Amino acid sequence: MLISTRNADETRLEGVMSAIRGRIANRTLTPGAKLPSIRSCARAMGVSKSTVVEAYDRLAAEGVIRSRPGAGFFVTAPLAPLALAEIGPALDREVDPLWISRQALASGSRMAMPGCGWLPASWMPEDALRRALRRLSRATPQTLADYGAPLGSLALRALLARRMASHGVEAAPGQIMLTDSGTQAIDLLCRFLLKPGDTVLVDDPCYFNFHALLRAHQVRIVGVPYTPSGPDTERFAEALTQHAPRLYITNSALHNPTSAVLSPSVAHRILMLAEQSGLTIIEDDIFADFEVEPAPRLAAFDGLSRVVYIGSFSKSLSASMRCGFVAAPADWIEGLTDLRIATCFGGPAMAAELVLGLLSDGSYRKHMETVRQRLSRSRETVGARLRNLGIEPWIEPRAGMFLWCRLPDGLDAATLARHALERDVVLAPGNAFSLSGSASGFLRFNVAQCDDERIFSVLEEITRAP
Amino acid sequence: MLISTRNADETRLEGVMSAIRGRIANRTLTPGAKLPSIRSCARAMGVSKSTVVEAYDRLAAEGVIRSRPGAGFFVTAPLAPLALAEIGPALDREVDPLWISRQALASGSRMAMPGCGWLPASWMPEDALRRALRRLSRATPQTLADYGAPLGSLALRALLARRMASHGVEAAPGQIMLTDSGTQAIDLLCRFLLKPGDTVLVDDPCYFNFHALLRAHQVRIVGVPYTPSGPDTERFAEALTQHAPRLYITNSALHNPTSAVLSPSVAHRILMLAEQSGLTIIEDDIFADFEVEPAPRLAAFDGLSRVVYIGSFSKSLSASMRCGFVAAPADWIEGLTDLRIATCFGGPAMAAELVLGLLSDGSYRKHMETVRQRLSRSRETVGARLRNLGIEPWIEPRAGMFLWCRLPDGLDAATLARHALERDVVLAPGNAFSLSGSASGFLRFNVAQCDDERIFSVLEEITRAP
Repeated sequence: MLISTRNADETRLEGVMSAIRGRIANRTLTPGAKLPSIRSCARAMGVSKSTVVEAYDRLAAEGVIRSRPGAGFFVTAPLAPLALAEIGPALDREVDPLWISRQALASGSRMAMPGCGWLPASWMPEDALRRALRRLSRATPQTLADYGAPLGSLALRALLARRMASHGVEAAPGQIMLTDSGTQAIDLLCRFLLKPGDTVLVDDPCYFNFHALLRAHQVRIVGVPYTPSGPDTERFAEALTQHAPRLYITNSALHNPTSAVLSPSVAHRILMLAEQSGLTIIEDDIFADFEVEPAPRLAAFDGLSRVVYIGSFSKSLSASMRCGFVAAPADWIEGLTDLRIATCFGGPAMAAELVLGLLSDGSYRKHMETVRQRLSRSRETVGARLRNLGIEPWIEPRAGMFLWCRLPDGLDAATLARHALERDVVLAPGNAFSLSGSASGFLRFNVAQCDDERIFSVLEEITRAP
Repeated sequence: MLISTRNADETRLEGVMSAIRGRIANRTLTPGAKLPSIRSCARAMGVSKSTVVEAYDRLAAEGVIRSRPGAGFFVTAPLAPLALAEIGPALDREVDPLWISRQALASGSRMAMPGCGWLPASWMPEDALRRALRRLSRATPQTLADYGAPLGSLALRALLARRMASHGVEAAPGQIMLTDSGTQAIDLLCRFLLKPGDTVLVDDPCYFNFHALLRAHQVRIVGVPYTPSGPDTERFAEALTQHAPRLYITNSALHNPTSAVLSPSVAHRILMLAEQSGLTIIEDDIFADFEVEPAPRLAAFDGLSRVVYIGSFSKSLSASMRCGFVAAPADWIEGLTDLRIATCFGGPAMAAELVLGLLSDGSYRKHMETVRQRLSRSRETVGARLRNLGIEPWIEPRAGMFLWCRLPDGLDAATLARHALERDVVLAPGNAFSLSGSASGFLRFNVAQCDDERIFSVLEEITRAP
């Protein structure tokens, strides 16, 4: 009797699950759609609420739907299955990588954003931007209205080639393609190089959007622990042997979130290993111009043979304009351009003209000098205040806006971030950057965004709590 | 003896093929890379040249490499395998869809471009664009330097919602996400909705970049013949039954390349069929503002439940600025925004501000009035000159820039396009738009780009040839 009841329960349960799977398959329920409430589903299907609860739970465990606390169950979007599986059980929407990005993008001036990954608008070269726009208002009709060339402005690409040469990276203008952003450049490369199921190495910790981007490509992500002089080379070598990855994505000159700098010997070792195993590397160098002392570039050692080099002006000049670039092996450029045209058609044209103007008239150089000095002072002040609260920078960065900080023992960054958000302070908890979930005791601070006393009150409140 | 020779040949052949496959697999030969010449490969591997020719031919037949006439063999980029299989044997790089786009994007003022899909810069509202840039030069520091909000400017989205309402399409601003282009909007939707191997319906003929975009998503493309009042509904119904497609992508208000307009009864029938089979529809309405008499929109009939609506200002205002949008079912927007952030991070911010300015101050409305009048005159003049040469417009379009024209019997559009290119005239041969390859006797003319006598000399030369 007991057994047959169980079977009947199981049958009802499977009935509910297969009905929902069917509605998803025939797109009655589309990705992102909210599922009916437990109560109304139970009523509609003539089963008990507990059966529906169990069915939803099982479907969530399979990754078909997902639960958002307080909001209900939703059909999983293409990004989410891997998100659930790979970011680990400790994270919910409040501290997942995309959520931090969206909070930072959405926040008005009301919020303090020490967790945000860019400079405040007040740090940007306002007068120079205004001048560049007035100059653009006198450009040719073609510049104002036409699509850009397939690779983008030749004048800007030639200038970028000269600037890259100053970091030791040799690229002909014909090896450079302009994109709307550094992220878009990486996305195009992933589309060009990867298949679903391929494996990609990232640093642990790394820029959290790499996780989101790679999940969108449905690849396996493997993390390699990051040390103050670059990835742990032994673990890197192990990962190559164990996982045969196609690709490694990193920031080398100035690492996000740690602000660490690759040492020449680690750079050399990584390239040797990459050579032996046929690995391609994407070197995302969007913080290049924040650098104070020159650091090694993988692309400089390698000569753009298996290293692809990415840059952008969103972090240093304006995120409103949208202009990035990729420098790649010469024989990839035609394929990458075809892909850009197929998926986005034109590249940045007006934005490229603005960047070209700002780079040519000297205002960018002067602006970045000021930024570097200001950041150096802020790193010192903010670092001191954090240390005072027992929040310890992992390293003493030589440049950049980020302090990667360890919390006092026993404090959990995610809990802290949720608490801070109630006080209108957006923090960046460590595990958003860590594939292994081993950074629950870390926060990333942007020293340029710490000019708000609410940040330190919240931190004090939490760190000093009994 | 004969048999064992054959076997030895076969062994050598397989040796060459597997060596090349191996070099591609370990990325010694990367996508887009040129293969060694027949001669040097034969020498290096100690086999005859005919063995290498046979190996390359077989690898090309498998889609692993591809031949570019006169240039050699290249490792296939992700886009190419389907390109080879689906565009059909008659097309080569000279007339394939991406090549036409690139020619048009790359051409300087030296070329005449009747095959190009947009207006000349001289037709764009130059003074208004200059004014908008000067106004932007006085904007807030946030507008100049910050990322836009996750969905993009609320003011612009509210304005777009009002404009869509005038076409009968009801969308709340929260259902609209700004993108860098109409193409990017479609690409994001494809990423959101499709898996490799899914089937997608397109019109035959349709905008050629739909083919390139869908190939990048590795989906099966099925064409439905297009009639002067929309897709052939019987064939559409058959395609639904036979292929169970996930998605149908179309321009409804003003169809590219035919300039045909959907009739209300066809629109209704298509939506009924879509409803029955759970089909999602992307309605790409980037030519909306070229319309003279209001045509039905699928999104208006459907209320954005299974129809997603796309727009852009690249064709009507400036292709240099980069601003498009998507209006989607409300519960898709969060997932789409996550995907945009993961793959491109910021959306258009400065460009959105420029579009908002031009739409608000009345200059866009006046500009489009002028454009519509000018196009009406040009369609008449160019149509008359083409008819004079025996080149017959398929229909008499009510609006838009395109004349879809049938060549005199026996003339092949691809041959003609190659010939014209030698005279610096870029034509758009019919089969670039036709999945079935049934439009070899058609050319698409952009009447706004026909103000160059070289076009008619070339056409006369060819059509009047004995």
